[in-house]
Amino acid sequence: MSGRPEPVDAIDAILNPRSIAVIGASASPEKAGGRRWKTLVEAGFDGPLYPIHPKAADILGRKAYRSVRDLPGQIDLAVVIVPPADVPKTVVDCVAQGARGLVVITAGFGEINEAGKIIEAELVRTAHKAGARMIGPNCAGVFSGPARMNVVGWETKAGSIGLVSQSGNIALDFADFSRKSGVGFSRSVTIGNAADLKAFELIDYCLRDPATEVVLAYLEGFGPLEGRRLCEMVKAAPVPKPVVILKPGRSENGRRAALSHTGSLAGEDRLVDAAFRQYGILRAYEVEEAWRTAMSLVDRVPMRTNGIAVLTDGGGHATLFCDAAGLVGLATPGLSGESRKALAALLPERCPVANPVDFAGVAEGEPHVIPKALDICLSDPAIGAAVMVGHFGGYDRLGGPTLTPLEIRAAEEIAAVARRHGKPVQVHSVHADSNPPAVKVLRNAGIPVHRAIEMPAKTLQHLLRATQDAALREKGPAAAITPGPMPKLADAVGAPLWLQEPEARAFLSDWQIAVPEWRVATSAKACSAAAAAFACPVALKLIAPAAMHKSEFGGVLLGIEGSKNAAAGYRTLMERAAAASLKDARVMVTPMIRGGVELVIGALRDGQFGPAIMVGLGGIFVELLADVSFRLAPVSESMAAGMLDDLKGKALLKGYRGALPVSMKAVAVLLARLSEMMATCPQIAEVDLNPVIATEDAALIADARIVLKP
Amino acid sequence: MSGRPEPVDAIDAILNPRSIAVIGASASPEKAGGRRWKTLVEAGFDGPLYPIHPKAADILGRKAYRSVRDLPGQIDLAVVIVPPADVPKTVVDCVAQGARGLVVITAGFGEINEAGKIIEAELVRTAHKAGARMIGPNCAGVFSGPARMNVVGWETKAGSIGLVSQSGNIALDFADFSRKSGVGFSRSVTIGNAADLKAFELIDYCLRDPATEVVLAYLEGFGPLEGRRLCEMVKAAPVPKPVVILKPGRSENGRRAALSHTGSLAGEDRLVDAAFRQYGILRAYEVEEAWRTAMSLVDRVPMRTNGIAVLTDGGGHATLFCDAAGLVGLATPGLSGESRKALAALLPERCPVANPVDFAGVAEGEPHVIPKALDICLSDPAIGAAVMVGHFGGYDRLGGPTLTPLEIRAAEEIAAVARRHGKPVQVHSVHADSNPPAVKVLRNAGIPVHRAIEMPAKTLQHLLRATQDAALREKGPAAAITPGPMPKLADAVGAPLWLQEPEARAFLSDWQIAVPEWRVATSAKACSAAAAAFACPVALKLIAPAAMHKSEFGGVLLGIEGSKNAAAGYRTLMERAAAASLKDARVMVTPMIRGGVELVIGALRDGQFGPAIMVGLGGIFVELLADVSFRLAPVSESMAAGMLDDLKGKALLKGYRGALPVSMKAVAVLLARLSEMMATCPQIAEVDLNPVIATEDAALIADARIVLKP
Repeated sequence: MSGRPEPVDAIDAILNPRSIAVIGASASPEKAGGRRWKTLVEAGFDGPLYPIHPKAADILGRKAYRSVRDLPGQIDLAVVIVPPADVPKTVVDCVAQGARGLVVITAGFGEINEAGKIIEAELVRTAHKAGARMIGPNCAGVFSGPARMNVVGWETKAGSIGLVSQSGNIALDFADFSRKSGVGFSRSVTIGNAADLKAFELIDYCLRDPATEVVLAYLEGFGPLEGRRLCEMVKAAPVPKPVVILKPGRSENGRRAALSHTGSLAGEDRLVDAAFRQYGILRAYEVEEAWRTAMSLVDRVPMRTNGIAVLTDGGGHATLFCDAAGLVGLATPGLSGESRKALAALLPERCPVANPVDFAGVAEGEPHVIPKALDICLSDPAIGAAVMVGHFGGYDRLGGPTLTPLEIRAAEEIAAVARRHGKPVQVHSVHADSNPPAVKVLRNAGIPVHRAIEMPAKTLQHLLRATQDAALREKGPAAAITPGPMPKLADAVGAPLWLQEPEARAFLSDWQIAVPEWRVATSAKACSAAAAAFACPVALKLIAPAAMHKSEFGGVLLGIEGSKNAAAGYRTLMERAAAASLKDARVMVTPMIRGGVELVIGALRDGQFGPAIMVGLGGIFVELLADVSFRLAPVSESMAAGMLDDLKGKALLKGYRGALPVSMKAVAVLLARLSEMMATCPQIAEVDLNPVIATEDAALIADARIVLKP
Repeated sequence: MSGRPEPVDAIDAILNPRSIAVIGASASPEKAGGRRWKTLVEAGFDGPLYPIHPKAADILGRKAYRSVRDLPGQIDLAVVIVPPADVPKTVVDCVAQGARGLVVITAGFGEINEAGKIIEAELVRTAHKAGARMIGPNCAGVFSGPARMNVVGWETKAGSIGLVSQSGNIALDFADFSRKSGVGFSRSVTIGNAADLKAFELIDYCLRDPATEVVLAYLEGFGPLEGRRLCEMVKAAPVPKPVVILKPGRSENGRRAALSHTGSLAGEDRLVDAAFRQYGILRAYEVEEAWRTAMSLVDRVPMRTNGIAVLTDGGGHATLFCDAAGLVGLATPGLSGESRKALAALLPERCPVANPVDFAGVAEGEPHVIPKALDICLSDPAIGAAVMVGHFGGYDRLGGPTLTPLEIRAAEEIAAVARRHGKPVQVHSVHADSNPPAVKVLRNAGIPVHRAIEMPAKTLQHLLRATQDAALREKGPAAAITPGPMPKLADAVGAPLWLQEPEARAFLSDWQIAVPEWRVATSAKACSAAAAAFACPVALKLIAPAAMHKSEFGGVLLGIEGSKNAAAGYRTLMERAAAASLKDARVMVTPMIRGGVELVIGALRDGQFGPAIMVGLGGIFVELLADVSFRLAPVSESMAAGMLDDLKGKALLKGYRGALPVSMKAVAVLLARLSEMMATCPQIAEVDLNPVIATEDAALIADARIVLKP
């Protein structure tokens, strides 16, 4: 054993072990066990390393053993790379030898067939019985910088990004970007089939890990409620850390099969997007974007406003950058008079004194103007970050070797100016990939240098969001809402179980959700009396356990005036009920709602993210444009107001064509209470409030259906 | 003089000169004239090269002259890199020495101030008087592969992409991508201030240039009608060639200031987008996307269907690629039973036999499976192209050097299979940038190898579009429309000049555009008679030269029934006209239109692209969502139908919520005739048909306004 501390738990035994055995180590780099043994030996792990091999006496200079059982000491971590049939017995031996951490690289289990899943479950049982945890099977391996341990089989640079990847090849991809950008990993864990340890558990480790500054993950999907757990872990992290997740799914067309309208709109990916935004997780869609965002966050220089100063060697790159920046909501504001005066004094007349600052060839001969102009720009209060675009670092390729030292000096000064101002500075250069000396200086100082001109725009957008999220987090939680009762299963009807409209309205009322008045009539006389009592035009609705969709039965009569018509309406609805053989039919009477803007509001319980709410504009907006916004429940009133701001047709709410603006506050209150109800009552599967009529002073629920879980 | 042919015109004198003088050549690479002289000498130009320098005896081994006037022979091309003040006299000297081509690199003219623009105009006059043409000033220079001439000042690889760039630095950027990808330029022209030669003229040269296979351009904007000329040149190219244009502008918020609703919606960028699509120009937004699209088009292997077979080393890259492909409208269809059977026979059981084909580690040890699987996939009729994703070319980094020759062999076979099937094949590899031997083999065989996984999706999308455009082109032109009369200025009123609704309706009728019946009344009696004659509810509209927007004056009365009410309506409108002091007031009577879907149709004359038409869905769609589609005029009926297909809310036209579908044919006929009218009558500035009511059998114009140019 080395002088390392005893691991605090099984995950720690994997990422900070005192001793490691590799079962299936080999001297041949063509073999999976050969290349992992090689990177492990070369990484400089300072505790005992045991290769296990059926014949070899030693492998790369380390004494080999026939079996784990033969080892001279206890082991913390066992890495398993043996044929699939040998894995179960090997795992039994490993835990017998004290291993609390297992990394099973061997493939051929749950990813192939059901038999494989059964073996996986058996491996997990073996591990858990011994207090051990397992990564894999079918994973690429694990790298841990602080432990100087590398069993992924490829060169991995140490640093402070903690990577959790559902794919070995994507981890390989990130390792390539890491090597080129000079920023490394604290941990790099590929989870394979994740039979035991899940992505969210390893992300949780990274959130608590002092060696990790930024958490990066590649995830394709979540197990039951894992999305929710991930979000809550990020929120609860003792030290807030940026989390960047590369998650495909933009072009997914699959929609959740569901009973209600709300459900059918909850495309998984929209919920992922909403949840990530809500919990301050930065989402990337491309490998390079994810990597460059993570590396830009390592130093966590805050970006406090969306204004960017652009410094450029020429007009073309400036135009392309401004276009990319505008597309992601960043601005390139005009500079102050003072800034412009200082720039005019610095630069010759032919350089336009504006934002972008165009060096028009000056910097290519006198690179020292760049840090000077940067200093002026970063002093401007409108500026939150600066980006230099062009071909810095390669001026010497055009102007000859006398420029090399001038560029290096300029790079040092750029880094110093950036540090002094505490604002993010990023560089785009045509020569970024060939890493010339001046670019190296910038990278060593923590200034990202990109080859693609849209990259600084994409990463700064994430940086701005991360800064804003951190500020929000400091403001503390929203005021709590007084919870209402649980729904009574006794009130529910049908299969699936659901609350008919009067019972749904009553339940919402109990949750202090404002519902327009209603009465239930079981006779023409009662119906007539109810209409008379309201003293205004009413709607009559046929209520019956088998009539979840009233309109299919002609079950809604609108604009009924007077008690006589109400009685006639009652009889009409009852005739329709009889014609459709609907049992236990009743009629609900409620005042007509006039004017206002139609909304669709709903709630659902997602398999990955749990309770969530939705709001959209009704009619064509929701049906043709799917113009809806989601959040995980619960939400505060101000978050709910943010949902309305997401809608493409939001202008309709703000007094369109001379109409009065609707009460955003009333809608937000309804959403917040609904979300609290959804989060509090696990029996509720789905809620449909469709439509809700938003008026200048209220959000009036015109129809309500609540589906319960049996 | 070399044995080269005499240039056929002035542009040819620039790109295929027999002799070149560089005024301002220098031996110092730090100087603009030094680095250009160096690349020129090194490029191997085989005709006379004359450096002009005030003192030097020779420069890089070539005898130098004091002045162009001292040259021993006539010159075709003069490259000018002297101080700004010396440029005018130098140009005079150059044309006197016979130069028909001028490339002025010196900056400090029109890009700085008005005085600079005046000098530029003078330079152009000097050139034109002598039959010469000029590129620049303020340009980076010109490269011509066939002429072995390079005065851009950086290494440029020869090949078959013709580049025209409005920015020197973007040309430098493309040169870097060219170097890395092994695909070069036929010509690379930076146009600087374009005081004389414009981008579209040089693009025209490339379209006619036998050395150019693909035209690539970086453009920021167009001069008057230059966009139109570019489109028409591309259409008229003797040999159709792919044209890829990198054009920023996605985040531009500026809207054209205009009189009409139509005009205010014509954001310049939407028109650029529509025009490019219409004329088969491929638009890119990022430098790398533009480059990789151009290089993928060099061999012009057609992509005849949007189905892609994906071959992958592992699930992660396949998922990311499919996501990117779906986002740009490409599909990854299931494979045929036959294909699946063949794949199952080829691959071990652990590889899922589906699309994506997942090698699950097999290819990493036995790369020869890749060409075999590729052969199976490309034989499948559902497959239009194939993409291999993962880390091909770098398997040896994991598996050791024994894999290198196996990967090279596999690369050769991949290339052979791709050639045999004549379908596009592209490769993504983590190791693309380091260009290992197997990647080199692929590149030499014309197979693009990308580092970014979304790149094959983006470039194949363009390839598919290019194939479809070429197929469309072969179908020949649409049937001609019989032209109608020119508008009479005598009919127009006001300032701006416009046709009042009755005159506008009459004019549209003359163009065989169906207009609902109308009558004009100048007395209550006539109004009453008109209403009686229609024998249905009518609309009454106040017509007056100063009432362009009738509703501002309460000038529209709807649903008037009976002759009595019509007479009363007439009097009401006349009272309103008197109250607003409107002169020459009349009343127009027209039948009410019931039902249907509201459209907004318009036409405008754009400064860059000339006549264009627009259609959108009325009401909130056009006002809140700007849901409109543009085309340059004229369009055929089938193109017009394509405009309706662009609309986000198009489902509204197809029988939404039980309504009858509207007649797309009637709307398309209206759009096509309107476009022909707009293209034929240069006097028309704008047309607003707002609304047009589309019904199941007609497109009924409910209001019409035509603005004329004075």
